[in-house]
Amino acid sequence: MEICKVIGHVWATKKESTLSGLKLMVVRRDTGAEDGVLVAADIVGAGIGERVLVVSGSTARKAFGRDDIAVDAAIVGIIDSVEAEGIN
Amino acid sequence: MEICKVIGHVWATKKESTLSGLKLMVVRRDTGAEDGVLVAADIVGAGIGERVLVVSGSTARKAFGRDDIAVDAAIVGIIDSVEAEGIN
Amino acid sequence: MEICKVIGHVWATKKESTLSGLKLMVVRRDTGAEDGVLVAADIVGAGIGERVLVVSGSTARKAFGRDDIAVDAAIVGIIDSVEAEGIN
Amino acid sequence: MEICKVIGHVWATKKESTLSGLKLMVVRRDTGAEDGVLVAADIVGAGIGERVLVVSGSTARKAFGRDDIAVDAAIVGIIDSVEAEGIN
Amino acid sequence: MEICKVIGHVWATKKESTLSGLKLMVVRRDTGAEDGVLVAADIVGAGIGERVLVVSGSTARKAFGRDDIAVDAAIVGIIDSVEAEGIN
Repeated sequence: MEICKVIGHVWATKKESTLSGLKLMVVRRDTGAEDGVLVAADIVGAGIGERVLVVSGSTARKAFGRDDIAVDAAIVGIIDSVEAEGIN
Repeated sequence: MEICKVIGHVWATKKESTLSGLKLMVVRRDTGAEDGVLVAADIVGAGIGERVLVVSGSTARKAFGRDDIAVDAAIVGIIDSVEAEGIN
Repeated sequence: MEICKVIGHVWATKKESTLSGLKLMVVRRDTGAEDGVLVAADIVGAGIGERVLVVSGSTARKAFGRDDIAVDAAIVGIIDSVEAEGIN
Repeated sequence: MEICKVIGHVWATKKESTLSGLKLMVVRRDTGAEDGVLVAADIVGAGIGERVLVVSGSTARKAFGRDDIAVDAAIVGIIDSVEAEGIN
Repeated sequence: MEICKVIGHVWATKKESTLSGLKLMVVRRDTGAEDGVLVAADIVGAGIGERVLVVSGSTARKAFGRDDIAVDAAIVGIIDSVEAEGIN
């Protein structure tokens, strides 16, 4: 999993049918060393500015409990705190 | 998913049979921080210049609803708008 | 597998149900050349400061012996020693 | 898929049995921004100097129509032309 | 597959049970452009200093002929020679 920060939303009217009704959030990797923005489907009710755990690849589909969904990144946890050297 | 911009097309006459009839588009990651060009199979009717959502890996096959297709990147949504800090 | 060093913990009260009870540790790639921090679920009882082997992607789920878990990185070994040129 | 250029061959006498008989080619990512060399198994009869489409990960196995093959990159198309801004 | 050079060994007494008995080798990407060290399970009897083919992800499990193993990188061939522009 990656530690990310939720920074916004994406809207897409025209999309693959399995994406209907999903909350698609823009997240930024937030561990100092790495950089990069991706779009993750939220399953835990995360809000803008929160730090979250993001899974990628086939695991993102598993997080939805179904294997046919067109999702390759998912927010699976809202981080309460991180206690680690070099991470604020 | 990654936020990409459609920048062109690829043509390949000689190709693996499951790719026949697919629209193969050239997309560029479009989130400021990252860089890189890839080829994604389009399933939502995207056009040049549009911002799109791209899934990668095994999820690209799922987006086509079949697991035997030789595709590892797919355009699954046309972005109407992005509202996120640092993304224009 | 990647050689990582355990540098801390992550706490998340609100999370996908399959993550309940897992020990989520913050690890840093530790091979000199690469950089980067990720969160991995521990299955071998690793402690802060230890060098560990981390698997990613679908293999992380296999390490838990179940395929429905929302985990894409797992600590699968505690390294006793590394004998390799350029790695201390 | 990635746009690559075929730059050579690899020979390996001692190898995992499912690789026997495969044509293993050295390809270089060829989109300007990215860099990197990988070895891909060819299924379309590509030659040195040609531009090709390369799939990675589990999709490479699917391209061979069997899931037990020890291949994680495959050449699935020979590119006739690319029409995209910034790609020559 | 990636062209890597075997540079050492890793020992881990405490590890996930499916890793027991595997030879875990430290390899370095060896194609000039890229950098990075990883640990790969050897299935072809590779030795220190040899150039090898390494597969990653789910394909590493396939190379072992079983899907339940906690391995995400495997040495699947010992390279006799590489004939490619820019690779020595």
